[in-house]
Amino acid sequence: MVTMTRTVVLAAPSEQSSDVTRVAVSTVIFTLRRDPAQENPVIALPLVRRTRDPYEGLWALPGGWLDQDESLDDAAARTLAETTGIAPSYLEQLYAFGAVDRSPTRVISIVYWALVRPDEIPSHEAVPAYDAENVTWVDAAHLPPLAFDHTEIVDYALWRLRNKAGYSRIAHGLLPDEFTLAELREVYESILGRRLDPANFRRQVDNSETLIPTDRFRTGSHRPARLYRYNQDVELADRGPLIARP
Amino acid sequence: MVTMTRTVVLAAPSEQSSDVTRVAVSTVIFTLRRDPAQENPVIALPLVRRTRDPYEGLWALPGGWLDQDESLDDAAARTLAETTGIAPSYLEQLYAFGAVDRSPTRVISIVYWALVRPDEIPSHEAVPAYDAENVTWVDAAHLPPLAFDHTEIVDYALWRLRNKAGYSRIAHGLLPDEFTLAELREVYESILGRRLDPANFRRQVDNSETLIPTDRFRTGSHRPARLYRYNQDVELADRGPLIARP
Repeated sequence: MVTMTRTVVLAAPSEQSSDVTRVAVSTVIFTLRRDPAQENPVIALPLVRRTRDPYEGLWALPGGWLDQDESLDDAAARTLAETTGIAPSYLEQLYAFGAVDRSPTRVISIVYWALVRPDEIPSHEAVPAYDAENVTWVDAAHLPPLAFDHTEIVDYALWRLRNKAGYSRIAHGLLPDEFTLAELREVYESILGRRLDPANFRRQVDNSETLIPTDRFRTGSHRPARLYRYNQDVELADRGPLIARP
Repeated sequence: MVTMTRTVVLAAPSEQSSDVTRVAVSTVIFTLRRDPAQENPVIALPLVRRTRDPYEGLWALPGGWLDQDESLDDAAARTLAETTGIAPSYLEQLYAFGAVDRSPTRVISIVYWALVRPDEIPSHEAVPAYDAENVTWVDAAHLPPLAFDHTEIVDYALWRLRNKAGYSRIAHGLLPDEFTLAELREVYESILGRRLDPANFRRQVDNSETLIPTDRFRTGSHRPARLYRYNQDVELADRGPLIARP
């Protein structure tokens, strides 16, 4: 004979049961920001102020809970758009953070990241729910205290950015379609946090065959500089097979 | 006045509530296996037969549910050891899979992977709970039908393996500490699925400065071949800052 026992669970909606693991998504968005005090642009990212416990009042990465009927990718895009209005063409999964003590209740956070050009950041006026007081952009090298393990998450994203800059087109995400070699070098210098020799940089780029020179030039206060674009034919380790899915 | 409503939830322990998202871990373990019918070794991985629904009877990646009080890394190591007895020195997080329809109930799977040398695979006798009938090793290029989205997961892991072979010491995970250039080339050929020109391969390896020649030679039926080891001083993009944590 099979006996079926039924358990009665009492739960108030506002309470979080301590024996449930919940899944959240967070997003690290990097862009380049000009700082008048510094010659090179700095890597900047958006933060959202927490308006409830835990860590009420502290800054955190944009994010939120995974809905029951949405994919991880969709949840990352939705929560990012809701809080900041940013809608990158592509969000890449970065890492799943799941330390037992990273939150007062058990929360697994799947973190996504993207690089956006300054012109891809919507103006405040264009974002209906934008809350200027509770969204800020900060220099990634000078973070304020962050909620949860978000400082560790940003540090990991910066490490991946520096690492990936060496073997992929990733710097392209921070540049317009056409750019000068000096502009490209500046992006790498911002990512790597150090100066690169212009002649060596030009030689490396020439050898890599990843850039195509155009017939156009950037003119201005300096002597005209040739504009380049990325060679889309060169297959680099950018996105992988998961992207091919519809 | 604040009104607190309390909700009564009825749940039988054996039933899975449909509005709960659960977190699981799975593991892809690659090794090299000699197949008498093929000149080069093949990439092989262990599978575990499912003994209950869904997909009862089908093969699946080793894995299981995340416990409330264990980290993602610990859960991956525990479930792998429980089912196969394999205990790699290092499991790397591969990707979080979270499509809404990947399982009858909502399950997010955090997938880990590792490369192991054949001598790191324990003999059946050494694994107390080993179930020889329900564990098998298969050629990654010829998978049987797998449960859930596990075929997609293995394909993604193979893509990462091929990709990573180009810029890191990853092939080292499949080799003993000292090896000949022919053995190293064979590993790359197995991973990439194509032949490499021996002279070109030797030149590339020499230029990369990642190998240190030893004074020892492999002797046997061919002429003696020098043994090499990896240069641990060359910093490659292997593991990243998350590993530095205690």
